[in-house]
Amino acid sequence: MKKIEAIIRKSKFDEVKKALHSSEVVFFTYWDVTGVGNEKQGHVYRGVSYSTTDIQRRKLSIIVSDEFLDKTVSALLESAYTGSVGDGKIFVSTIDEAYRIRTKEKGTDSLK
Amino acid sequence: MKKIEAIIRKSKFDEVKKALHSSEVVFFTYWDVTGVGNEKQGHVYRGVSYSTTDIQRRKLSIIVSDEFLDKTVSALLESAYTGSVGDGKIFVSTIDEAYRIRTKEKGTDSLK
Amino acid sequence: MKKIEAIIRKSKFDEVKKALHSSEVVFFTYWDVTGVGNEKQGHVYRGVSYSTTDIQRRKLSIIVSDEFLDKTVSALLESAYTGSVGDGKIFVSTIDEAYRIRTKEKGTDSLK
Ligand SMILES: Nc1ncnc2c1ncn2[C@@H]1O[C@H](COP(=O)(O)OP(=O)(O)OP(=O)(O)O)[C@@H](O)[C@H]1O
Ligand SMILES: Nc1ncnc2c1ncn2[C@@H]1O[C@H](COP(=O)(O)OP(=O)(O)OP(=O)(O)O)[C@@H](O)[C@H]1O
Ligand SMILES: Nc1ncnc2c1ncn2[C@@H]1O[C@H](COP(=O)(O)OP(=O)(O)OP(=O)(O)O)[C@@H](O)[C@H]1O
Ligand SMILES: [Mg+2]
Ligand SMILES: [Mg+2]
Ligand SMILES: [Mg+2]
Repeated sequence: MKKIEAIIRKSKFDEVKKALHSSEVVFFTYWDVTGVGNEKQGHVYRGVSYSTTDIQRRKLSIIVSDEFLDKTVSALLESAYTGSVGDGKIFVSTIDEAYRIRTKEKGTDSLK
Repeated sequence: MKKIEAIIRKSKFDEVKKALHSSEVVFFTYWDVTGVGNEKQGHVYRGVSYSTTDIQRRKLSIIVSDEFLDKTVSALLESAYTGSVGDGKIFVSTIDEAYRIRTKEKGTDSLK
Repeated sequence: MKKIEAIIRKSKFDEVKKALHSSEVVFFTYWDVTGVGNEKQGHVYRGVSYSTTDIQRRKLSIIVSDEFLDKTVSALLESAYTGSVGDGKIFVSTIDEAYRIRTKEKGTDSLK
């Protein structure tokens, strides 16, 4: 099983959610975070090139079975895209075990 | 070392916390998140079966040594349970290294 | 690639951010969390030794290439340190893949 963490523009959330649903990814968790980094194309103001930092972002955490990984990442890459600096990041890691609390099911059964 | 992430009903938090303490798990971190999914048993309203989405949840992140994994998961499975749809999920992953900042201790020593 | 999660005192955030920048770590994500644990040196009040729980903390999530791991951890250990109980924790785990959404770059290229 894989965990997909996506940090996206808040303005793109509805579109991303719709794209996930179209890819049959209907379970996920999200919360709001602050992003620090080179958030804007540096521009020159009074001779100094600067770029703002500390931007509000939305973080999604999606646990999927291995066979859903590729299409979930593709859905995120497409739906969160604008082409301007700051579209966000996707990070993939491995989940050793998962449980549905109600049924005590384990593994990929708990994700269905 | 293992990371246990649990997404539970907010109303179950106090009970879960007590159960963790009873299992000698006294360190953890939590924050509030939004869950998207099949959050309610679909029911029929004016002929349409629907299920609400976007429910407030609490997420716990608990790092434990391997020997504490099983009893921590058991404590969560029992204390977060109601039997109704939406009791939550538990995800387990691997932590490569841990540090206590005050003492610079590493590994399981940093968790004691 | 590695994920470094640090749970620090909120009062130390500016110092930590500066230290990360000095180590060329300019991208990260943060949000506020609650920490449960032995948050204060137990002290005796009316004959009872107690320690408060549920303290506000800030959590940082930093994804770096393997070669940046050591200096990032060192920067955190130094800048988040006060020497008093409750300076926080650092947890390291493995990231399988990363993407920059704007360019569709993968791997460490997406982190530069
Ligand atoms: N290495 C990282 N570790 C943790 N979070 C990151 C990292 N890189 C980016 N982020 C998060 O992702 C958000 C968006 O990043 P962003 O899209 O600006 O990436 P970028 O590499 O600067 O690409 P671009 O050149 O398109 O701006 C940041 O605000 C931050 O929250
Ligand atoms: N695959 C997943 N990835 C990320 N978060 C998830 C995933 N599945 C569930 N969650 C989170 O867990 C919360 C609770 O899930 P829930 O208990 O409804 O799971 P379920 O599989 O629908 O089980 P049930 O049939 O009992 O409702 C969701 O609101 C969401 O925040
Ligand atoms: N095992 C753990 N799992 C998850 N979060 C943890 C864990 N241990 C500590 N934390 C988080 O880190 C925060 C700070 O921990 P703290 O610095 O008090 O660690 P400590 O081990 O008690 O060290 P000290 O003896 O210096 O107090 C806690 O408030 C909690 O949010
Ligand atoms: Mg950027
Ligand atoms: Mg459900
Ligand atoms: Mg402490």
